[in-house]
Amino acid sequence: MKGEDAPGPINPDAVQHLSKKKKSRVDPESIIRQIKEGDRVALARAITLLESTKLEHQAMASAIVNLALPHSGKAIRVGITGTPGVGKSTFIESTGLMVIERGHRLAVLSIDPSSQVSKGSILGDKTRMAQLAKNEKAFIRPSPSGTTPGGVARKTRESIILCEAAGFDVIFVETVGVGQSETAVHSMVDFFLLLLQPGAGDELQGIKRGIVEMADLLVVNKADGAHAKKAIEAKREYAVALHLYPPKESGWKPKVMTCSAIETTGLDEIWDIIKRYRDEMQANGYSESNRAIQDQYWFHESIKADLHSMFFNNDAVKANIPLLEKDIAEGKITPFDAARQLLNKFQGK
Amino acid sequence: MKGEDAPGPINPDAVQHLSKKKKSRVDPESIIRQIKEGDRVALARAITLLESTKLEHQAMASAIVNLALPHSGKAIRVGITGTPGVGKSTFIESTGLMVIERGHRLAVLSIDPSSQVSKGSILGDKTRMAQLAKNEKAFIRPSPSGTTPGGVARKTRESIILCEAAGFDVIFVETVGVGQSETAVHSMVDFFLLLLQPGAGDELQGIKRGIVEMADLLVVNKADGAHAKKAIEAKREYAVALHLYPPKESGWKPKVMTCSAIETTGLDEIWDIIKRYRDEMQANGYSESNRAIQDQYWFHESIKADLHSMFFNNDAVKANIPLLEKDIAEGKITPFDAARQLLNKFQGK
Repeated sequence: MKGEDAPGPINPDAVQHLSKKKKSRVDPESIIRQIKEGDRVALARAITLLESTKLEHQAMASAIVNLALPHSGKAIRVGITGTPGVGKSTFIESTGLMVIERGHRLAVLSIDPSSQVSKGSILGDKTRMAQLAKNEKAFIRPSPSGTTPGGVARKTRESIILCEAAGFDVIFVETVGVGQSETAVHSMVDFFLLLLQPGAGDELQGIKRGIVEMADLLVVNKADGAHAKKAIEAKREYAVALHLYPPKESGWKPKVMTCSAIETTGLDEIWDIIKRYRDEMQANGYSESNRAIQDQYWFHESIKADLHSMFFNNDAVKANIPLLEKDIAEGKITPFDAARQLLNKFQGK
Repeated sequence: MKGEDAPGPINPDAVQHLSKKKKSRVDPESIIRQIKEGDRVALARAITLLESTKLEHQAMASAIVNLALPHSGKAIRVGITGTPGVGKSTFIESTGLMVIERGHRLAVLSIDPSSQVSKGSILGDKTRMAQLAKNEKAFIRPSPSGTTPGGVARKTRESIILCEAAGFDVIFVETVGVGQSETAVHSMVDFFLLLLQPGAGDELQGIKRGIVEMADLLVVNKADGAHAKKAIEAKREYAVALHLYPPKESGWKPKVMTCSAIETTGLDEIWDIIKRYRDEMQANGYSESNRAIQDQYWFHESIKADLHSMFFNNDAVKANIPLLEKDIAEGKITPFDAARQLLNKFQGK
């Protein structure tokens, strides 16, 4: 059982293999029961189904997620972003271990649409968060590979539901901070944390302005040794800069803190802030209304994605696109009229 | 005839009224002939048809634009953006008059999706560019009102085609620089100019980072009187900052210049840069390939917009959305599954 208890994904082939051998175990009801009982293999398998491109896997995954839904929603969902080099892995590992020490169970999900790796990045995740990966109260899942950033984000959003049903009450969703997925992550978490390093504002150059606006907390990491003084300076500068940003709908005033993930200083204070945020937002009703707005966002994003894929898989559309693109290129038709004609073909007109 | 010769839109009711009285004049072929002969009323009327929400007007507008297409494409299309207060109107008026003096005919189109006004902003445009509005070689058209930023931008894109068919060989497309329409404008012009004012980098705070990356030329305006020294400092700082940006596909190195729109200094140099850009891009083939890419962009943007409107106007969709939104709100179904179900209803499944 030791091997089975280890977290990590199972590839879809293995699932299929299993489904042939033990048919009774792979119906949605059984899987959700196993997930709720804390079976990490069942959880990993369900997430793998989510990530599968096979239609029957997706249908089953969808059924599982719907069954998980009533048992989800109780975790604190924290988005963590920062450009490569700010010490994100160490921060997540140190903060994660501290959160677990305080009695929580933690799931760490990553989104990195630029990553084309699957097995490579799994090993990578276990290496870069070695302590956390070994901890039985932690579940680490690397970024799913996918064709579109939207698809990757959506799978992560559904994975949150499954992790919550499995009893994880703290969820970290990690992104790389280069602007491709942060809006999506912001739309699936309660609290958004931006990790920075000392450098007197220079590092904001690598971060899209919109990301700073989304942050509920800026953390200047590496406040240790030779960097300690610079980190405090950076904190002061960010605090001034934050005053220039428009107020947040939540009424929350974004904070700036320093920490050293390596020396594990400042992490307790960060966690206290996150809990304080949670308490305040539950008290003023923002937490609930924000999650409702997020659901609406995902509803409409999914419609867009599904419509797009339905349209471009339509035979009449596929047959006519090359001709219309040629006509556009030759200046025979405007792109607008070409789009209108294509839509008519789609509708069988 | 004097009144008829004045530029400016005509409201759709007036068009309809006319179409009843003089049927022969409003077929697409006649209108495009009038436009090509330089009839500004016909041009204004065709743009008004574009902006109409009535289906028969849109169909006619579409026919007119397609007929205009073979006569379009020869103008230099320049996007001009900058936050309120940088002196955009004065800059466009001064530069516009200089361009006309050099023998060109100029059309100025504006995009401001935040503007809900129609007649108000027309008056506004004529007031803020009084000299240009009176000039017979200039055609000023304010931002069309529209429900979506995409819709507004698309109408402007089609208006460019009509203005070019009418013989305007320089097109200015103006936006307010707050990040809603700049991508759309960038996708319809050859050259993108960002107008700034002296202030040692502070003003970049109000401009989205992506906009600076799109710019082919940064112009620090108000390089006069007490601001002259600050403008030169700002120019130097921007020049340094531009080195940090990734190189452009066109191979063009973005420039920084100063000017005073009020004292009309530096404007000739700006126009020379724009012409040099045009010559270089025509020589290296970027101009042609870029316009082809832009057409593809508009083709796909139009498909998205048309699909969206077709979907949400579908009776089964309209009937099921409230129920599904309620189920989502009550946690009975995931947003993803709700989207899937709605798509099935749309497809009659």
